[in-house]
Amino acid sequence: MRVLILGGDGYLGWPTALRFSARGHEVAVVDNFSRRRWHREHGTDSLTPIRELDERIDAWREISGSEIRRYVGAVEDGAFLDEVVAETRPEAVVHYGEQPSAPYSMMSRERAVETQHTNVIGTLNLLFALRDHVPECHLVKLGTMGEYGTPDIDIEEGFIEIEHKGRRDTLPFPKLPGSLYHCSKVHDSTNLHFACRIWGLRATDLNQGVVYGIDTEETARDERLITRFDYDEVFGTVLNRFCVQAVIGHPLTVYGSGGQTRGFLNIRDTLQCVELAVENPAERGEFRVFNQFTEQFSVAGLAELVKAAGEHLGYPVEVQHVENPRVELEDHYYNATHTKLLDLGLEPTLLGEELVESMIHAIERHKERVIESSIDPKTRWSPGAPVKL
Amino acid sequence: MRVLILGGDGYLGWPTALRFSARGHEVAVVDNFSRRRWHREHGTDSLTPIRELDERIDAWREISGSEIRRYVGAVEDGAFLDEVVAETRPEAVVHYGEQPSAPYSMMSRERAVETQHTNVIGTLNLLFALRDHVPECHLVKLGTMGEYGTPDIDIEEGFIEIEHKGRRDTLPFPKLPGSLYHCSKVHDSTNLHFACRIWGLRATDLNQGVVYGIDTEETARDERLITRFDYDEVFGTVLNRFCVQAVIGHPLTVYGSGGQTRGFLNIRDTLQCVELAVENPAERGEFRVFNQFTEQFSVAGLAELVKAAGEHLGYPVEVQHVENPRVELEDHYYNATHTKLLDLGLEPTLLGEELVESMIHAIERHKERVIESSIDPKTRWSPGAPVKL
Repeated sequence: MRVLILGGDGYLGWPTALRFSARGHEVAVVDNFSRRRWHREHGTDSLTPIRELDERIDAWREISGSEIRRYVGAVEDGAFLDEVVAETRPEAVVHYGEQPSAPYSMMSRERAVETQHTNVIGTLNLLFALRDHVPECHLVKLGTMGEYGTPDIDIEEGFIEIEHKGRRDTLPFPKLPGSLYHCSKVHDSTNLHFACRIWGLRATDLNQGVVYGIDTEETARDERLITRFDYDEVFGTVLNRFCVQAVIGHPLTVYGSGGQTRGFLNIRDTLQCVELAVENPAERGEFRVFNQFTEQFSVAGLAELVKAAGEHLGYPVEVQHVENPRVELEDHYYNATHTKLLDLGLEPTLLGEELVESMIHAIERHKERVIESSIDPKTRWSPGAPVKL
Repeated sequence: MRVLILGGDGYLGWPTALRFSARGHEVAVVDNFSRRRWHREHGTDSLTPIRELDERIDAWREISGSEIRRYVGAVEDGAFLDEVVAETRPEAVVHYGEQPSAPYSMMSRERAVETQHTNVIGTLNLLFALRDHVPECHLVKLGTMGEYGTPDIDIEEGFIEIEHKGRRDTLPFPKLPGSLYHCSKVHDSTNLHFACRIWGLRATDLNQGVVYGIDTEETARDERLITRFDYDEVFGTVLNRFCVQAVIGHPLTVYGSGGQTRGFLNIRDTLQCVELAVENPAERGEFRVFNQFTEQFSVAGLAELVKAAGEHLGYPVEVQHVENPRVELEDHYYNATHTKLLDLGLEPTLLGEELVESMIHAIERHKERVIESSIDPKTRWSPGAPVKL
């Protein structure tokens, strides 16, 4: 199969490219290295010493004998993306090519506009390119569980049947995004659904939970293939950050009470899910939504797990509740359906102390690279007085 | 009150500026004349011979003794908009400053991107400017009934109480926008709701129906104050177009069967509604949605009404069903709640043969300006084979 991966230099995009290439597919990646640029601008960096895209691709060729084609450019550049799609004629596109950080989107007007422009216009350009060149192509788009927020009812997979005043319809599940980044993902979903309904495209929106982990089967084959791993307040996600904090002796920073509950999954399961989606494409005209996570945890619960694992390895671990820089409920109902990927055959890698210990070991190898000043939260959701929800 | 009107040179923006000025408010308008530029690019024009903004403002000063301040620039330009808000310190902003045409947004990738960029980024810039300079200001934002599409249940005003698996919550009403323009309005609503929830802003989203009519109390006071009136396939709305077609002897072009049912309102009622919203502001942190229309009609029903009125005035009127250039249901359930503005005191101007006749008379004065080639639909929603819903 011809698979095009947007954001193919990223945390998940690069391992995804390797996975499809390892399976014998013809893989091309698009990236404009924004993620590397954003880190440089903030004085932060990946924990892992990632190589330049060209070096990665060369190493993969050497190891596997397979070629990954690269296209350097921005998805916001419609003419560029149109050319890439016309030239590669993908049968599946996996779209990770977005600004992925909630705090980044909340830093300033400029960053918010950059986020929504990059994400919304990039995806819109992609939809037109697919319509015009490869309308049969299956688009696998990364969304986020954060699109739903924390409603007081069970979260379904994209759609919900509503009975209202004696009538009934199945409609898009209402969204309560928690940052301007999350809003941009909601916008994308709306545009995707539209393109499937009106143009007959086929798309799977993967509403992914919070990803943790470093290694995948392919990245572990050579140190030059390692993927990025972020732990800073802007691009780091909670479990990855906690593990780094445990290793360097920094208290685990729980935002507020830590009652915030979210869906989580291992990076290896991200690859499994994306593979399953690609292997089982949506129908023409179908807009399909999968809730892509394997387990629910509260932030405080994760801190306890990392504390236990860290202490088991001899690290003294302190859990510190800091003022929540975000505006979000810290005590809420949360129950999200996630059966569609299981139905397709997903075999979850469940999180336990052993897995956390293996992450800690992986982090130990690079602990001298940690920039400690980048960890504590600085980006506030509300620049004025704290907002009470 | 200090009222800032974005899109103050437009069909509704200009009469709104006059209305607030006539009521003694301190009015400033922002416009970058995109609408005039888009018409020039398409070789189309307003039926009414509108004056340049400066001439309009001069005429209004001469007639009323009141000053309307003008700021020429684009809402997409965040620094410009920030300055305008900082300088005018509005107590209410009425935001019409968007690309308002569904067909325009469906013409090409470039037009779609322009639409979503202008609308989404413009509104996002506005939200930041309000947050940073006038967080107490009430934002009255023009949305559209087209955000909802045609679900098979009753449409509520912005929110719906959902009972699901034994739990209950009131959540944003699910949206099924029918064009990339309509999608942009859905994106705006998501961003607005977010800004109210997280930053404590106050906003009213006016999900407006299809507007018809030419004159308002103020524009009728002098021919130099007349507002624009579009009838072309891109910017003209259905009833205005039918009336022009009746006058020039062009068949009324009903798209498909004409069973499409929508909410409609008179331009005079738009002004009433906006006034009511401004006079009765939302609370801090409240995101309020009003469905702003007064009556529901099917397209075929409107054609019959115009035919009857036209024939009564001696025009031979033919109704022609043309292939629907849009992808939309032509036979569907439609029942939309619209009580909130009535509760605030809206007195609807109901549509009848007499009102259509007065529109026809107003059109007759400018009939020599009609560019007939601009009327028939050319912009197709789906460039390939027709999509069956």
